[in-house]
Amino acid sequence: MRMVIEDAVREAGNDPIFAVAAKADKRIEEVGRDKVINSTIGALMDDDGNLVTFDSVYDVYKNLPDDQISNYAGIPGIAPFREKVVDACFRDKKPEAYIEAVATPGGTGAVRHAVANYTNPGDKILIPDWHWAPYQTIAQENRRSHTTFPLFNEKGAFNMEAYEKAILDLLKEQGRVLTILNTPAHNPTGYSLTVPEWKEIIDFFTKTAKEHPEWRIILLVDIAYIDFAGPDARDFMPLLSGLPENVLPLFAFSASKGYTMYGLRNGAIICAAPTQEIADEFAASCSFSNRGTWSNGSRGAMQALADIWSDEDKLNRSLDEQKENYELLRARADAFLEAADEVGLDLATYSDGFFISIPCDNAKELADKLMEEDLYTVALKKGLRFAPCAVSEEKCRRAPALIKKALDELK
Amino acid sequence: MRMVIEDAVREAGNDPIFAVAAKADKRIEEVGRDKVINSTIGALMDDDGNLVTFDSVYDVYKNLPDDQISNYAGIPGIAPFREKVVDACFRDKKPEAYIEAVATPGGTGAVRHAVANYTNPGDKILIPDWHWAPYQTIAQENRRSHTTFPLFNEKGAFNMEAYEKAILDLLKEQGRVLTILNTPAHNPTGYSLTVPEWKEIIDFFTKTAKEHPEWRIILLVDIAYIDFAGPDARDFMPLLSGLPENVLPLFAFSASKGYTMYGLRNGAIICAAPTQEIADEFAASCSFSNRGTWSNGSRGAMQALADIWSDEDKLNRSLDEQKENYELLRARADAFLEAADEVGLDLATYSDGFFISIPCDNAKELADKLMEEDLYTVALKKGLRFAPCAVSEEKCRRAPALIKKALDELK
Repeated sequence: MRMVIEDAVREAGNDPIFAVAAKADKRIEEVGRDKVINSTIGALMDDDGNLVTFDSVYDVYKNLPDDQISNYAGIPGIAPFREKVVDACFRDKKPEAYIEAVATPGGTGAVRHAVANYTNPGDKILIPDWHWAPYQTIAQENRRSHTTFPLFNEKGAFNMEAYEKAILDLLKEQGRVLTILNTPAHNPTGYSLTVPEWKEIIDFFTKTAKEHPEWRIILLVDIAYIDFAGPDARDFMPLLSGLPENVLPLFAFSASKGYTMYGLRNGAIICAAPTQEIADEFAASCSFSNRGTWSNGSRGAMQALADIWSDEDKLNRSLDEQKENYELLRARADAFLEAADEVGLDLATYSDGFFISIPCDNAKELADKLMEEDLYTVALKKGLRFAPCAVSEEKCRRAPALIKKALDELK
Repeated sequence: MRMVIEDAVREAGNDPIFAVAAKADKRIEEVGRDKVINSTIGALMDDDGNLVTFDSVYDVYKNLPDDQISNYAGIPGIAPFREKVVDACFRDKKPEAYIEAVATPGGTGAVRHAVANYTNPGDKILIPDWHWAPYQTIAQENRRSHTTFPLFNEKGAFNMEAYEKAILDLLKEQGRVLTILNTPAHNPTGYSLTVPEWKEIIDFFTKTAKEHPEWRIILLVDIAYIDFAGPDARDFMPLLSGLPENVLPLFAFSASKGYTMYGLRNGAIICAAPTQEIADEFAASCSFSNRGTWSNGSRGAMQALADIWSDEDKLNRSLDEQKENYELLRARADAFLEAADEVGLDLATYSDGFFISIPCDNAKELADKLMEEDLYTVALKKGLRFAPCAVSEEKCRRAPALIKKALDELK
């Protein structure tokens, strides 16, 4: 007997990451935290394994009057948030474009709206072969599917050739394409597109769009990790200025990582549209989508972010805390990279961010084997994901040798 | 030039309620709060026009450790919330059924999941003619539509005959029906289905489902206002026990009103399934939908509700605050009902809750005319909505005469 529609029958959620994380916790209880490397968690943890929460954020949030947390935010988000989230997104690198922001529950909500409003049911969205698995879930839940292109070329740089081909194939098939680029500090590899790569992409979009004014190219840049990608992370943004009318850059902004607001579900979908008309259309469609999906967002979280970006002292304190934690993460990643180099462990090209990936065909087997060494990782289709965001520098330095040894033994 | 898909072109959000509310605020600035009756707001306000926020809730919430707010909740919600929200929903009136809860952003998210998982794209959902407008938006956003039945019969009670016909028509057409009943304390009329009416509905479902085992009847009870509907509000719940396998009762639970958590977006979709299999199927589909839509919910808000329902002192304090505010609301509504009776103003049958409706064909005209008397209301298709939740008892007593006079003048 089935009550849900055929399309909505799903397997019960035996989240494999959760299962491995539970094993790691159990092992920590048995032998102590020092001896276990738990690299399963996708959030920034301090060296003692506690979630990092920014005082600069929670001091503001918890001091809001109750009614600023309790009240409804209004469908597209409160006005000060819609204004200030644009600054938080672009900082001093705002493209010359018509910019609108609509609040969403984290970056996930932004991806959902891009899929629902800019692709037709049945369309395929375009994502790299290395990708955050929920992009697929979001497409599926909204009756779309996905196709992939190889993220890297043989030099370990962005595979422009494959990307162009995939875009053109989809445009010919669908007349429109939604392409999601999770950059800088891509999950799960840590890759950041370089400025020259961005220029190539934008030139290609411009040329293609001008040759085919009937086509629609929608680029969603998922910047979830941007505040952990160093001082140059926003250098590509001004390039998204002066585009043809039929190319629309969108941004999935998330306050989860950069403001440690994961559980507050605070984010936005932001357009940098070539015309006012397209920006207005964006705001109307995404506001309607809010109303028809989750109604409105976390008011207090919006208020806190708006307050931080409206007050120089609050902002400086928050940016300092971001920077300090970026440096912590950078030191851990560098330790891993150096140690990997020393033992000859091949990695997917890492620039910045929460995750580092080890390409291999047998990631599940490798992950299982590493558990015997008290190293807990996440097995992906294309390789193994290690999370410097959750592991101390000392352990980051130890891990590559363990992985290399296990890989060699499996050969 | 259009970038969104044809289906997603929406009018810019000139929210009519917001526009009237803004006029009311302007008028309050001009002539003072005493002279203006602002009945546009759908949240509980104290007599001075401030949002009511429960200390019993915000004392718990704001005293949570930062990481309990900051961390992710897990896709279906944190375990203690999934357990305790069942108590908050049913209290001592739990049906004998297989109960599962999945966290959603407010009641809206629960409605969205019911629509997405229990109706096919293109299907019509069934709602009363008097209804909360966003049900339509949710259906539309998810590529469904809606049809209505008259909520009231000529006696001002539930129109069982029309309901049965509408259900059967949809079952014949679609093989399944999702019917949303917003009760007790229906928005916008304040009507609560009586226990005998519930019995009739359940008998009808049982008979129909047994005669047609191939049909699927899904009943979503939207209980957004249940904690402002008096001590008997949950008496219907145990009736939803022992149903045929092809009848599935779902509940849209919201912490917005009962815990003044509007802006925290805390709610759940809860099933009271006739079999374990159907409850498991429910949890798997709704968890997948979470992942593919907004990922997860407000962790701190879940934690606070779970903490309140795990601690007798916290719970008693919270229930006392609910009760005190229920009594405030009840006194306001009684004042309005008495005054309406005195002046001979006809109302849609009101039992309890935030809103009272005055049936009329020219609500827009009436609302405009009432603004001249400094009375601000919401014009609906079927009548005028007055909001005792937002208006002091003294003003509730004054309003009916103003409405009656304006109605008579428009005749």
